[in-house]
Amino acid sequence: MAINRKIYFAGSIRGGREDAEKYHQIINYLRSYGEVLTEHVGDDELLKQEKSLSEKEIHDRDMAWLTDCEYVVAEVTQPSLGVGYELAMALTMKKQVICFFHSGSGKRLSAMIAGQPYYKVKNYNEVSEIESYLREIF
Amino acid sequence: MAINRKIYFAGSIRGGREDAEKYHQIINYLRSYGEVLTEHVGDDELLKQEKSLSEKEIHDRDMAWLTDCEYVVAEVTQPSLGVGYELAMALTMKKQVICFFHSGSGKRLSAMIAGQPYYKVKNYNEVSEIESYLREIF
Repeated sequence: MAINRKIYFAGSIRGGREDAEKYHQIINYLRSYGEVLTEHVGDDELLKQEKSLSEKEIHDRDMAWLTDCEYVVAEVTQPSLGVGYELAMALTMKKQVICFFHSGSGKRLSAMIAGQPYYKVKNYNEVSEIESYLREIF
Repeated sequence: MAINRKIYFAGSIRGGREDAEKYHQIINYLRSYGEVLTEHVGDDELLKQEKSLSEKEIHDRDMAWLTDCEYVVAEVTQPSLGVGYELAMALTMKKQVICFFHSGSGKRLSAMIAGQPYYKVKNYNEVSEIESYLREIF
């Protein structure tokens, strides 16, 4: 049953890849709970394959995945236009949305995300805390 | 008549203030064409006044301004969750949206923005180019 759950993972791509290793680890955790539609976000090799796609093809593919999923899990530490766009669209599509923010990063989460009560925002220090949190909710 | 036009300017706040001076200049240009509801985005002194507001109050105030405006003008060079969120919401509210991207920045614009044909995206090198572009459309 778990395997039928569709999860859209959102993380920064062009906004900066500083947290790519964390995305990879979170996607690995998520795989125990369902199908992660956006595995490329944590995998630079898979990302390279996007080069054959136009901007509109990437946008439309991601929006189709977003429409298709039940859960959106986002790592929101690295500022990203794409993640902000996806989170707003996820809200209008009434998806369940969980955001993880690295509180030791020295960054401040946007008020558009922190101030939107629709989103479940969880602060973490170690990526491993995310694993136990996911176990709680799934 | 021009003065009745309501414009929402979007630029990065917590995502990084590297382009704050550009935001300030764009807001100055926009003042010739209407009322800029979000002047604080280009003004660090005005931003300080936000400290007395909760995250939800900032979010709700900005969403009320977004609902109220006719035009959204965004500077999209600096990655920002808030700007991505605002752009997606502007689309669902059917606002007219113009995005400016600094092509000499070494950054790459998110495919969620570049690949969404609803947005008018203009590349620029010098902020002064934005002035002539705004004259064309307003």
